[in-house]
Amino acid sequence: MKLSLEAVAALTGGTILSGDPELNVFGVASLLDATPEEASFLGNEKYFEDFLHTSAGIVLVPPGLPKYPENVAFVEVANPSMAFNALVKYFKASSYKFVPGIHPTAIIDPSAKINPDRVRVGAYTCIGAHCEIGDGTDIGNACQIGDSVTMGENCRLHANVTIRERCKLGSRVTIQPGAVIGSDGFGFLMGDNGRYVGIDQVGIVELGDDVDVGANTTIDRARFGRTVIGEGTKIDNLVQIGHNVVVGKHCIIVALSGIAGSTHVGDYVTIAAQVGIAGHLKIGSKSTLAAQTGVTADIPENAAYWGTPASPFKDACRQFAALRKLPALIKEVHSFKRKLDSSGN
Amino acid sequence: MKLSLEAVAALTGGTILSGDPELNVFGVASLLDATPEEASFLGNEKYFEDFLHTSAGIVLVPPGLPKYPENVAFVEVANPSMAFNALVKYFKASSYKFVPGIHPTAIIDPSAKINPDRVRVGAYTCIGAHCEIGDGTDIGNACQIGDSVTMGENCRLHANVTIRERCKLGSRVTIQPGAVIGSDGFGFLMGDNGRYVGIDQVGIVELGDDVDVGANTTIDRARFGRTVIGEGTKIDNLVQIGHNVVVGKHCIIVALSGIAGSTHVGDYVTIAAQVGIAGHLKIGSKSTLAAQTGVTADIPENAAYWGTPASPFKDACRQFAALRKLPALIKEVHSFKRKLDSSGN
Amino acid sequence: MKLSLEAVAALTGGTILSGDPELNVFGVASLLDATPEEASFLGNEKYFEDFLHTSAGIVLVPPGLPKYPENVAFVEVANPSMAFNALVKYFKASSYKFVPGIHPTAIIDPSAKINPDRVRVGAYTCIGAHCEIGDGTDIGNACQIGDSVTMGENCRLHANVTIRERCKLGSRVTIQPGAVIGSDGFGFLMGDNGRYVGIDQVGIVELGDDVDVGANTTIDRARFGRTVIGEGTKIDNLVQIGHNVVVGKHCIIVALSGIAGSTHVGDYVTIAAQVGIAGHLKIGSKSTLAAQTGVTADIPENAAYWGTPASPFKDACRQFAALRKLPALIKEVHSFKRKLDSSGN
Repeated sequence: MKLSLEAVAALTGGTILSGDPELNVFGVASLLDATPEEASFLGNEKYFEDFLHTSAGIVLVPPGLPKYPENVAFVEVANPSMAFNALVKYFKASSYKFVPGIHPTAIIDPSAKINPDRVRVGAYTCIGAHCEIGDGTDIGNACQIGDSVTMGENCRLHANVTIRERCKLGSRVTIQPGAVIGSDGFGFLMGDNGRYVGIDQVGIVELGDDVDVGANTTIDRARFGRTVIGEGTKIDNLVQIGHNVVVGKHCIIVALSGIAGSTHVGDYVTIAAQVGIAGHLKIGSKSTLAAQTGVTADIPENAAYWGTPASPFKDACRQFAALRKLPALIKEVHSFKRKLDSSGN
Repeated sequence: MKLSLEAVAALTGGTILSGDPELNVFGVASLLDATPEEASFLGNEKYFEDFLHTSAGIVLVPPGLPKYPENVAFVEVANPSMAFNALVKYFKASSYKFVPGIHPTAIIDPSAKINPDRVRVGAYTCIGAHCEIGDGTDIGNACQIGDSVTMGENCRLHANVTIRERCKLGSRVTIQPGAVIGSDGFGFLMGDNGRYVGIDQVGIVELGDDVDVGANTTIDRARFGRTVIGEGTKIDNLVQIGHNVVVGKHCIIVALSGIAGSTHVGDYVTIAAQVGIAGHLKIGSKSTLAAQTGVTADIPENAAYWGTPASPFKDACRQFAALRKLPALIKEVHSFKRKLDSSGN
Repeated sequence: MKLSLEAVAALTGGTILSGDPELNVFGVASLLDATPEEASFLGNEKYFEDFLHTSAGIVLVPPGLPKYPENVAFVEVANPSMAFNALVKYFKASSYKFVPGIHPTAIIDPSAKINPDRVRVGAYTCIGAHCEIGDGTDIGNACQIGDSVTMGENCRLHANVTIRERCKLGSRVTIQPGAVIGSDGFGFLMGDNGRYVGIDQVGIVELGDDVDVGANTTIDRARFGRTVIGEGTKIDNLVQIGHNVVVGKHCIIVALSGIAGSTHVGDYVTIAAQVGIAGHLKIGSKSTLAAQTGVTADIPENAAYWGTPASPFKDACRQFAALRKLPALIKEVHSFKRKLDSSGN
């Protein structure tokens, strides 16, 4: 499998800046790893030094660079990272192909609706009573699917995924290994006898179309009603979503973040890593929460917040900068005090 | 399945404030989702607006509300959230019933003590040598139970739970999917050759009666002796408990928190989400650690703490409030300085 | 199994300070739990009070203690914690023995290279096409190993581990239950239609020799190329390693920490618990990041950092100490202001 410079430009919708249109590459790599027979890309100005020292044959570049290395062919594109993805797809090392069929060790309840000619079910996977699995869906090895779970078409569940009873998945949902959908919400009441009593958690989890769920992420079922992840939302690894949370459409939730019970997150919200959001809050659409933010109050739309407790992003930056000056400030104030005292004020 | 207003009052120990005692409801829902044929509850004043606009047939309310919506029947109860739980149980959508029996694909070592007429073991679950499983215990699909593990009566392990060798579970322990009990403690010593040497972790984990463990939570075995979770303690998803930690009775540990090795936590402690507690500390009984707190020193009894490093809760609130004023304070101090300088002080 | 005081000294390379050389112990325990028939150790001065009240028969001690309890035999060693490990090994309660053999329910693709006389494969484990498994490797129950995975010799995978296609493990790699190696990296681009498009993640994960991976930890495969964990690095439970991260040799990464995509971590770095490191950064060798640190910029070699955003450790300590004084400082400045105003300045 090879690709000429001309073909690279065509595939990425870019313009050849330099190089022989018939120059061929045979794979892709990062700027520092790439050989003259591979293509690479400059997607982030942090890598400009790597770019100047690359041995790649072809590099996808954004417009207007101040300097270029020698002996490299360049294709200019608007978004090198997205354009490079087209090359990655072309050379796709992964041999994943959807091959329908039910592994003989899979245990599927006879009441489940599933077309064995159009669905794949891996080894040691169990599918409960009254499940409905859409065509084109690929369920990996050792997944445990509870009773009355429904999945749309063309979903992909990797190995060791657990989906508890009655949860609903849209179409084209992807779930990485070890994720748990529909675990009991964490709700207890303190009884008069000094012991916690579990609150029954009889609701479900509903994942919209095109939702991605990361490895070992956990999404709790609602106390009653539904915990909802909206269409197109992408969730990273080791994220915790509490019961009755409603996340809107096309959000990003990065690793090790947690959203407590009954909080509503709007659409197009970006939640960076290790963010914590308290329960019963509203997070406005198109807002951004920077990494490690601790949210204890509602967040307006289109806003960026940072810090614990969360402040508007620019305020948080000023606070963090001011904190660095605080030890010196304390000394300065003490020195004033001495001056004022000695001047008799 | 239906319930009259009179029956709702009887079931919840409440008083009818308004409505026809023979009015029937057929299910439960949140204030905004409920129809006239469903019951709901007002458990948190944040939902007072939803309450005023509910279409529910019956609402459980706390005493002394300033205002009520029209055309709704009310039952006054001391604790609407707990009372509602009784209704949820009544209408329980979940069809969970304990049906004893060993799935033919379960692999149970012949030396294990387990009564197949009184225990359920799911598909593809393995139970090691010399295990003892109490009556009424329900072990889901694909659980991996190591040698010499003991469990009391009426435990429930959901799918994909791993319990390593020799760990001990009390009675009525509930474990959500993907949790790991008895992983090796994280202990290494730097050798003279510049390489870490693993310290053998030969102890166990002991979970008391009525302990709950959340999805994908991990509890490490002791270096020697025991890592202990006391009776009645409830642990949320994605929590990490280090080796030789001792957690007391009736504690709450919320998602994404971590407790490092050898720390002792008292009874009735509440540890909110994303809290980190360093090793070898003592956390006093009935103390509360607010979300994202970082604990680096012992915490007294009955205290509330917040922040990193943890301060008494009120102090932390004052510090966070002061931090918001700090950028302005710095300007003010600089302006004094100019005044003082110009005034010749 | 027993050990005399003389034998304890020989085994640990220590010196008998007091006690009958023929005194025997039959096991090990902590200072407070130990009986006169057990050995213990004083590894941390925090336990000095426990030491003074121990009932242990023999205690391993560091040089130069100010005081000793009565009726206890002492062996002085340079590093009591490491020395004690030798005793733990001797009395090792764990009965782990490597017994090669393929469980009849394991499903191993015929193209996999694996010597059934020298490898153990547990029940319900699946090993994909073209895998290569080194001699002495022990794969527990219910592990899911994708196609073309390679492992060196003497690895140990506990139950329920998932390793996706093409990942490479060195020799003597240990993986705790529930860990996921090779999940897809978290990479999306926003399309013109307002929907995220997944970036293909076609690289792999490579774990060096002697790497340990904790329970339910997740390590994402590279976008292309490799996510690398260097030789001898030890990773705790519930850690997230993003795509294309490169971690050097002999690092420690403690629980609930996350490293975002493409960051490079040097050798001998210590990353304490709940640390977050942003993407595309360089963390210098032999640096230390204290717990809950949030790293948003490169970290130099040999440095210790703390706080969010990370400051040099001593600066962070000063900032945290200053923050505690800030509420009082604000009052003081306001009092100056009043004085200055009233004095006509």
